[in-house]
Amino acid sequence: MIAYGVFREGGVCARVDGRVLDLRPLGEDALATRSLNAFMARGPGFWRETRQRLGEGVAVEDAELGMPFEVADYVDFFSSLHHATNMGRMLRPGGEPLFPNWRHLPVAYHGRSGTVVPSGTPIVRPCGQRPGPEFGASRRLDIELEVGFVIGTPSALGEPVPVERALDHVFGLVLVNDWSARDIQAWEYQPLGPFLGKSFATSVSHWVVPLAELEERRVPAGRQEPAPLPYLRGEPWAYDVALEIELNGTVIARTNMRHLYWSIAQQVAHLTVNGASVRTGDLLATGTISGPERESRGCLIELSWNGQEPVELPDGRTRSFLEDGDEVVLRGEGIGEVRGRIEPASLPGTR
Amino acid sequence: MIAYGVFREGGVCARVDGRVLDLRPLGEDALATRSLNAFMARGPGFWRETRQRLGEGVAVEDAELGMPFEVADYVDFFSSLHHATNMGRMLRPGGEPLFPNWRHLPVAYHGRSGTVVPSGTPIVRPCGQRPGPEFGASRRLDIELEVGFVIGTPSALGEPVPVERALDHVFGLVLVNDWSARDIQAWEYQPLGPFLGKSFATSVSHWVVPLAELEERRVPAGRQEPAPLPYLRGEPWAYDVALEIELNGTVIARTNMRHLYWSIAQQVAHLTVNGASVRTGDLLATGTISGPERESRGCLIELSWNGQEPVELPDGRTRSFLEDGDEVVLRGEGIGEVRGRIEPASLPGTR
Repeated sequence: MIAYGVFREGGVCARVDGRVLDLRPLGEDALATRSLNAFMARGPGFWRETRQRLGEGVAVEDAELGMPFEVADYVDFFSSLHHATNMGRMLRPGGEPLFPNWRHLPVAYHGRSGTVVPSGTPIVRPCGQRPGPEFGASRRLDIELEVGFVIGTPSALGEPVPVERALDHVFGLVLVNDWSARDIQAWEYQPLGPFLGKSFATSVSHWVVPLAELEERRVPAGRQEPAPLPYLRGEPWAYDVALEIELNGTVIARTNMRHLYWSIAQQVAHLTVNGASVRTGDLLATGTISGPERESRGCLIELSWNGQEPVELPDGRTRSFLEDGDEVVLRGEGIGEVRGRIEPASLPGTR
Repeated sequence: MIAYGVFREGGVCARVDGRVLDLRPLGEDALATRSLNAFMARGPGFWRETRQRLGEGVAVEDAELGMPFEVADYVDFFSSLHHATNMGRMLRPGGEPLFPNWRHLPVAYHGRSGTVVPSGTPIVRPCGQRPGPEFGASRRLDIELEVGFVIGTPSALGEPVPVERALDHVFGLVLVNDWSARDIQAWEYQPLGPFLGKSFATSVSHWVVPLAELEERRVPAGRQEPAPLPYLRGEPWAYDVALEIELNGTVIARTNMRHLYWSIAQQVAHLTVNGASVRTGDLLATGTISGPERESRGCLIELSWNGQEPVELPDGRTRSFLEDGDEVVLRGEGIGEVRGRIEPASLPGTR
């Protein structure tokens, strides 16, 4: 699959059959900038033309890549039925695992755009208020395996995007690790949702895969029950893309994008139904993608069932949450990877 | 009070004693752009120099102003004790009005940056899922009287800003009307907080008042009980700035910024304590500012006590929530105003 990225020093490049091509020789202003935003804003016609002219790019060895795009708004959805169900079971035992709204709309919240970082950026363990409250470094630092869709063509304020035209606005996708401090989040989140438990860092892959590359991966998805309201309605579909989580060199989970209940088209239609616009560079992440099996869960709190069933590693050690020095790599088949290593908290007295 | 804005066609201007001065004659690149961001990013030294050179500006009659700054991240706090208490009493009757975290940290969530609009922008009544769910235009459209602090000097990722140095990062303040569709929000918000109930529009004043202009308005505030954790600790203070809500020409509420429990310094310290950075153009709003009296409440759901005690207008009509054609003006003493008129929803069949 073709993908686009940006050199650390600026300039758009393409990944073609594992090789990196510098696209600046194509002589387009939109390919000579420090992010993909100008390229993405040019729209589908220009994307197709560029695709046809990749042969004019110049191969580069040992390319160093930077942040692929400037994030406008970052929205994180909660679109995996298995993930939402597991979280409900763990956090509200005895009750209905899903809130009444979950099957009617793709639940979402806004995240922090300013702390979205490219793959490889070290992740410093965050400090904050743990339940109590007591101040300290997070003891329940987790990953979230997600995919993020990046908006190319903006929409106008006050003009909802119909679900059947939603994909016209989407440039492509990245892998996302939505690092989460479960203890900070548990204490802070009522009644307005996650804030510092998520805002310290969100990692994205260097490469953005255009949606057009995924056309043949489009597959029917499970029935949506009850049927969504008309503005969200359509034949259910998903992308068939295998995903995996590697922790310190061991694959600890394998899942697939086809497990998503809500599609990217439904997410865009929902986000704009109130008249809100989308902008070039908006990042719409899926939320943790979990499948039906234990080994297809997309975060440690699910994999370890809130610490009750720690994940076993080949060296005999176990993990319920991340330890300092741990390295996590999320991979998507044909998409690439997003990587990050945990650094110790910088509490006074601890470094 | 001096304030800064941007002409609709670009170019930084100042408001001095009610006159508008074009600052482009000062010959600084940072004053010739389409937003205040370059000016704000230059830092306190440049802000002081510019203040001293205002006499070189050229008076402009009938200036038309635009959006004053490009919003990086928009964070909405929940920092008024009276507002949080009233909302808890109305929405969770019989229980504790405040969640256990409220007195320990300034609760907040991220809002949508891309739909922050300047004063005067028409506000189209949003559509979406009302409780049920059923699809339609919001029937419980509300205002929220807030103040927003705008970040000038950025901070580095991974380096929390100490509470005693937080104000060094803040350029100034604007008035904010955080329009809210209470019915959409009530249905969608669990468990991740407000999304479409808030994201259709947030209005800000054209003028940004530098923090330096408010120095003499700084007053001691009520004791914080229990004492906050050390990273939030300091003598409680607030700004003494009178605020009012005008609805269709009638002032329906009068309150004051001194009613805020958490200060802007505490908000910045909290936002960054997990290592998150702030960027030039970040908008940190206070949340609805309510005082202790009925007539000092900062939104209609409080003023009408969730519709049970509608607000009476001079023409004999009443309001629990906004009707189409209503015009709301929020004013801050010496700061200016933010204004917006409600336009009918653009549902198929209704226009």
